[in-house]
Amino acid sequence: MEISALLTSAGINISICIVLLSLYSILRKQPANYCVYFGRRLVCGGARRYDPFWYERFVPSPSWLVKAWETSEDELLAAAGLDAVVFLRMVIFSIRIFFITAVVCIAFVLPVNYYGQPKVHKEIHLESSEVFTIENLKEGSKWLWVHCLALYIITSAACLLLYFEYRTIAKMRLGHITGSASKPSQFTVLIRAIPWSPDQSYSDTLSKYFTNYYSSSYVSHQMVYHNGIIQRLLLDAERMCQSLKHVAPEINCKPSLTPCTFCGGLTATNSFHILSNEGDSVKGMEIGEFAHFQERPAAFVFFKTRYDALVVSEVLQSSNPMLWVTDLAPEPHDVYWRNLNIPYRQLWIRRIATLVGAVAFMFVFLIPVTFIQGLTQLQQLSHAFPFLRGILKEKFINQVITGYLPSVILILFFYAVPPLMMQLNVFSSVRDIPAQLARAVPTQAGFFTTYCFTSGWASLACEIMQPMALIWNLVAKAVSKNKDESYETLRFPYHTEIPRLLLFGLLGFTNSVIAPLILPFLLIYFFLAYLIYKNQILNVYITKYESGGQYWPIFHNTTIFSLLLTQIIALGFFGLKLSTVASGFTIPLILLTLLFSEYCRHRFAPIFHKHPAQVLLDMDRADEMAGKMEELHKKLHNVYSQIPLHSQKSSSKGECSTQELPDPEKLKPEEGDAIAKELWGYQGNESGQEHEDKSCPSASSPEHRTPTMIELHKRS
Amino acid sequence: MEISALLTSAGINISICIVLLSLYSILRKQPANYCVYFGRRLVCGGARRYDPFWYERFVPSPSWLVKAWETSEDELLAAAGLDAVVFLRMVIFSIRIFFITAVVCIAFVLPVNYYGQPKVHKEIHLESSEVFTIENLKEGSKWLWVHCLALYIITSAACLLLYFEYRTIAKMRLGHITGSASKPSQFTVLIRAIPWSPDQSYSDTLSKYFTNYYSSSYVSHQMVYHNGIIQRLLLDAERMCQSLKHVAPEINCKPSLTPCTFCGGLTATNSFHILSNEGDSVKGMEIGEFAHFQERPAAFVFFKTRYDALVVSEVLQSSNPMLWVTDLAPEPHDVYWRNLNIPYRQLWIRRIATLVGAVAFMFVFLIPVTFIQGLTQLQQLSHAFPFLRGILKEKFINQVITGYLPSVILILFFYAVPPLMMQLNVFSSVRDIPAQLARAVPTQAGFFTTYCFTSGWASLACEIMQPMALIWNLVAKAVSKNKDESYETLRFPYHTEIPRLLLFGLLGFTNSVIAPLILPFLLIYFFLAYLIYKNQILNVYITKYESGGQYWPIFHNTTIFSLLLTQIIALGFFGLKLSTVASGFTIPLILLTLLFSEYCRHRFAPIFHKHPAQVLLDMDRADEMAGKMEELHKKLHNVYSQIPLHSQKSSSKGECSTQELPDPEKLKPEEGDAIAKELWGYQGNESGQEHEDKSCPSASSPEHRTPTMIELHKRS
Repeated sequence: MEISALLTSAGINISICIVLLSLYSILRKQPANYCVYFGRRLVCGGARRYDPFWYERFVPSPSWLVKAWETSEDELLAAAGLDAVVFLRMVIFSIRIFFITAVVCIAFVLPVNYYGQPKVHKEIHLESSEVFTIENLKEGSKWLWVHCLALYIITSAACLLLYFEYRTIAKMRLGHITGSASKPSQFTVLIRAIPWSPDQSYSDTLSKYFTNYYSSSYVSHQMVYHNGIIQRLLLDAERMCQSLKHVAPEINCKPSLTPCTFCGGLTATNSFHILSNEGDSVKGMEIGEFAHFQERPAAFVFFKTRYDALVVSEVLQSSNPMLWVTDLAPEPHDVYWRNLNIPYRQLWIRRIATLVGAVAFMFVFLIPVTFIQGLTQLQQLSHAFPFLRGILKEKFINQVITGYLPSVILILFFYAVPPLMMQLNVFSSVRDIPAQLARAVPTQAGFFTTYCFTSGWASLACEIMQPMALIWNLVAKAVSKNKDESYETLRFPYHTEIPRLLLFGLLGFTNSVIAPLILPFLLIYFFLAYLIYKNQILNVYITKYESGGQYWPIFHNTTIFSLLLTQIIALGFFGLKLSTVASGFTIPLILLTLLFSEYCRHRFAPIFHKHPAQVLLDMDRADEMAGKMEELHKKLHNVYSQIPLHSQKSSSKGECSTQELPDPEKLKPEEGDAIAKELWGYQGNESGQEHEDKSCPSASSPEHRTPTMIELHKRS
Repeated sequence: MEISALLTSAGINISICIVLLSLYSILRKQPANYCVYFGRRLVCGGARRYDPFWYERFVPSPSWLVKAWETSEDELLAAAGLDAVVFLRMVIFSIRIFFITAVVCIAFVLPVNYYGQPKVHKEIHLESSEVFTIENLKEGSKWLWVHCLALYIITSAACLLLYFEYRTIAKMRLGHITGSASKPSQFTVLIRAIPWSPDQSYSDTLSKYFTNYYSSSYVSHQMVYHNGIIQRLLLDAERMCQSLKHVAPEINCKPSLTPCTFCGGLTATNSFHILSNEGDSVKGMEIGEFAHFQERPAAFVFFKTRYDALVVSEVLQSSNPMLWVTDLAPEPHDVYWRNLNIPYRQLWIRRIATLVGAVAFMFVFLIPVTFIQGLTQLQQLSHAFPFLRGILKEKFINQVITGYLPSVILILFFYAVPPLMMQLNVFSSVRDIPAQLARAVPTQAGFFTTYCFTSGWASLACEIMQPMALIWNLVAKAVSKNKDESYETLRFPYHTEIPRLLLFGLLGFTNSVIAPLILPFLLIYFFLAYLIYKNQILNVYITKYESGGQYWPIFHNTTIFSLLLTQIIALGFFGLKLSTVASGFTIPLILLTLLFSEYCRHRFAPIFHKHPAQVLLDMDRADEMAGKMEELHKKLHNVYSQIPLHSQKSSSKGECSTQELPDPEKLKPEEGDAIAKELWGYQGNESGQEHEDKSCPSASSPEHRTPTMIELHKRS
C-alpha cells in the first residue's frame, strides 16, 4: 500500500470523525435527545433543561471535551464506581506506553528501516508503506540491534507501568471492599446442591446442617423457590392491582417513597396500604402450600460476621464436593433468580457447552476473514474479480479500495467477532510459528493501520453518537406521539470495549518494531478513546454491576501476552534476517517477561479472587464496636427476597452509585431503621429480569444527589 | 521386525526373568541377605531367623509368590499405608483394563488386520510383525468399524473402571483422614513470610497477629530458627555425649523406652537422666541468646481444633498475598527444616528454575533417542555402520540386533529419563499431528514391544533382586568384617515406579487397536508387577511419607490423557485409510472422554486437595466430647521442635504404620500422658536429615507389632 493511499484513508476517517463529533456537540444540546445523551444524568437527577429558544444550541462546541478532560479520578470514582476508573486507567496505560513506544520507534527504528537498503528513494507520499517496515532491511543487517534495544525499552516500560498500575488498582480494590461497609452480600453465602432428603424439606436439611456445624455463626437463611410459583404470584398480584386501578382510577402510580409490594407502582393512599397487607397474607398462604414441593436445592445463608461468611464460602464443606457447594453471594440486585433454578450438577456441563459453542463460532468466521484479507492485495483482487481490472487502473479508486474497503467490509461482516482470529489460519507448523508470524505481520501492517481507522476511530465516533439509540428515540417519538420522555438507560459495554482496547494494544505492540507507522494513528485512537469514554461514563451509562476492579487482571494478562507475542515475532524476524546476536538477546527478554508475569500473579492476583481475612476481620470488629451488627443482621433476610418487596421504579435509583445515598448506618436508630431498609431495598432487583427502566423519573428527589453530582450538574 | 525376532527377544527376556526370580528365591533365604530382602520386616521386628544348616534354602521355591498373592488389601493397608494400597490398585486397574483390551483386540482387531489385504500369507513365525498392525489394511477398508467399535469398548471399560476406582479411593482417603485422629499436623498451620518489624522479633509479631485476629482459636506457636544455630547446638551435644561415653563406657546405647535427648542413644541409667536435664538448661540459654537474631520468618502455629487450622490455612490472610502465607503443616517427621530457611519470596522463582531445568534436561535427551530409534530399521543401521553389513546377513544376529539391542542401549543410556519424549520429535505440524502419530506408532510397534521386555520385565527382575543393595551388602560385609547386620531401609520409589506404570499404560492404549500384538506381553508385565511390588512393599520398603492416596489423581489424569491420545491416533489412522464413518464416530468419543474427565475433576478431585470441613468438624466434636482436646494441645509444641527431643534410633519405629502403635487416646490418663508423648515423639524426625537408619534394632519390643504383623510373621 502506498503512503498516499494510507493518507487518503486517514483523511476520510478524520473527516468522518470531525463531522460526527461536531454533530454530536449539536445533537446533545437538543432537549429531545436528552434521553439519549444524558441517560445517566436523568436517572441520577442532574440534567439541566436548556431553554428551547436558545439558538446557541445549533452551533458545534468543544465544551464537552473540556469537561471530560477536567473531571478528576476521584469525581469519576464517586460518580461511576471502581470499574469505570479501572477502565479509564486501561486507556491511560495504553496512551502512556504507546507514547513511549511511538517516540522510540519513530525516532530510531523507522529511519533504520527506511534506509535499510541502499536504493534511490521516491518522494515520501509515493513510497510504499512497506519501505517503513523491517522487511526493508537487508539480510544480516548490522542495524538489527536497534530493534532489539527498542524491544527492551518497550518491554521494560510496559512492565514498569503495569506493575505500578496493578499496585494502585489493588489498593483501590481494597479501599472498595472496606468502603462498602454495609453490603449485605458480605454476610451472605450462596449454597447450592443441598442434598435431598425424602422426609424433610430442603429448608429443614439446611437449617439442621448449619445449626449443627456452624451454630455460633449461622443467623438465618432464605430459600430459593421455583421460578414458576413466584411468577404466578406476581401475575396474580399484578392482575389484582390492575382491577383495583379500574375501580379507583385516582389511585395512580405516582412516584413516592412508599413502594407497593406487588405491582411495582408507587402509592401514597391508605387504601393501597390495605391491599398490600392483604397481599402479604395471600402470599404467605400460597408459599406455605407450595413451599415443600417448590423449594429448590439452593439458598442464601446469612452469617453473623463477614469473616464467618468468607470462611464458609471458601472451605470445602462435604466429602462429596458436588453437595453443599458454597460461594460468596452476589449483591442482591445482581441475583439472576432464574439461574439459581438450574441444578448444580448441570452447571459444569452447561459451561463446557458454552465454551465449545464459542470456539466453534469463532472458527466458522475464519473463512470469510481469509477472503477479506485477500482484498488488500490488488493482484489477488483483480484475479478474483476480472471485471474490476478496468476500474482498478484508476488511481484514486485503487487507493480507496486497498486502503479502506477491506476493513470496512470486515467491520460490517464481523462486528461482533474479535478479529484476533485473523492470525490463526496462518499457523501450520509449531516450530515455524515465530518465522511465519514474522512473515505475516508486516505484509498485513497496512491492513491493520486501516483497521485502526475504521474499527477504532469510526467506532469511537459511533459510540459517542449512539446512532441506534438516537434513531430509536426519533422513531418512538414519531410513532407514539407520547410526550413522556421515555428512554433506556444502558450499562457500559465493558464486554466489547475492553476486548477492543486489548486488540488495539496487541496491534500496537506487535507492529511496534516491525512496522512503526501505525503508532501515531493508534495514539490518536487512544487519546480520543480517553475523552469519549470518559464523557460517556459521566453522561450516558449507569453503573449497575460493580466487579470491584476485577477487569484489571484480564487486561494485565492480555498485555503480557501481547508483549510475549511481540517478542516471539521479533525473534522470528531476527531469525529470518540472520541476526544471531539480536535473536540471542531476545530470548532472555522473553524469559524475563514470563518471570515478571509470574511475580505479579503471586503478588497481586489473589487479591482479585479472594477477600483478605485481615481486612474483613477489621471491618467486623469496627462494626461490633459501634454496635451495628444487630441492625445489619435484621435486614439481611428481606434483602435477598425472591419476591420483590420494592418497586421496579425505585430500584432504578440504586443504579446511581451508593455513595450518593445517605449511609444507613449514619442515621439515628429510630429513623435509621426505616430509611436504611428503604436504601437496602433499592438493591433488591425485580426478580432478576434484565429489562431496564423506561420512564424518566423526572421528580426524583434532590436529596439523592451527592455533592459531587450537584457540582457536576452546576458545571454542565 | 519378524515375528521370530520378536519371539527371540521374548525368549531371552523370559529366560533372564526366570533365572533372576529363581535366584531371588534362593538369595532371600540366606541369612546374610536379610538386610537386603527383609529391610521392612527387620525394622518392624518381624523377620524369622532361618536355621543356617537348613539345606532347603539352596533350592528355589515359589512360596514368596503365593504369600504375595494371598495378602489381602486390609492387611496391606495396615502394614504399609494407603499409598501402597493405591499403588497396587493402579497395577490392578492396569491388569483389568488390559485384560479386556487384549481380549477385544486379539479376538476381533488382530484377524481383521491380518487378513486386511488379499495376499498369500507365510508361516506365522516368518511373517513380519507389521502384518498384524492396522497398516496392513487396504485404503478405504470397510472393516475399520471393528477398530472403531473396539475403541468404544476400551474407552467405556476404562472410564467405568476409573470411575469406580476413584470412588473407592476417595472413600479410603476420607477413612485415612478420620482414622488418623491424633495427628498433630491436623492442628497445625505452617506460616511463612511473617512481616519483619524493626522493633520486635518475628515471634512477637506472630503472637500479636494471632492473639489479635484469632484469639479464640490460637493456642501457641513454634518458631523456625536458622539452621546454623541448631546444627551447632546438636554438634555440641553430640560432642558432650561422646566425651561422657569415654568417661563411663558401661553406659551403652542399649535399646530402652527412655530416649536420650541429644546423642540419639537410648539409656536406662540414672546418670544419663541427669545429663539430659543439664542439656535442657544449656539449650534454653543458647536459644535465648540467639533467638532474636536467628529467628526465621516462618513458624508452626497451633490451633484449638482441626477446623480452625483448616480455616486459617485456606483463607487469604493479608492484603499483601506475599505475607502471612499459610498452609496446613506437614507431619512432624516430614518437615525438612533446611527448606523452611528459604525466604518465601524466593520460592516461586526456585520452582520456575526447577521446571525450566527439567524441561531443558528432557530436550537434551532427544538427540540420542532419535539415534537409538534408527537402529530398529536394519537398512538404516547398515547404512550408518557399513562394516556391520557382513554380520547383519546372519539370521540370528539380525534378529537379536533388531529385536533386542536398541532398547537395551536405550535403557542403559537413559534409565532415568521418561522415554515418552521419543514421540515429541515427530511433530512438526499442528494440523497433521493425528496423521503423523498414526504413521509413527505402527512402525515403532516392534520397538515398543521389545522396550516392554527390556524396560518392563527386566526392570521388575532388577527390582526384586535389588542388585545394588545386594552388592553393597556383600562389599560392606567383606570390607568391614563387621558382624553387625547393618543395612539401609529404603522407601518405595513411587517417583520412578508410577511413571513407569503410566508409560506402559500409554504404550498399551496407543498400540491397542493399531498393533495389538504388544498386549499379551504387557499383560504379563502387569501381572508380574503386581506380585513383585506387593512382595517388595511387604518385605523391603518402609513407609515414611504418607500422602493419603494423592498419587491417584495423577494416575487418573494421565490415563485419561493416554485414552485421548489413543483416540487421536486412531482418528489419524481412520483419516489415512479414508474411512469417514470411523473418523466421524471417533470425534464424539473424544468429546465424551473429555466430559468424563471433567466430571471426575468436579466430583472427586477436590477431596484430594482439601480436607472437607464436615469431616474435621465431626472429628473435633468427637474429641471434645471425649475430653481429649486439652491433652492433644499440650503435646503440639514439643512435636514440632526443631531440636530433636527424641532419639534417631527410636524414630525408625515410627516408620512402621501407625496402626501398629497403641493409640495414645485409648490409654488411661495417668499412664496415657507419658506413653502418648513417646508415641508422638516417634514422628519427630532427626531435624529432617534424609539419612536412613543403619542398624538392626533386633531387640525391638514385641508390643510394637500389630496382630496383622504377627500373623504375617508367623506365615513367612
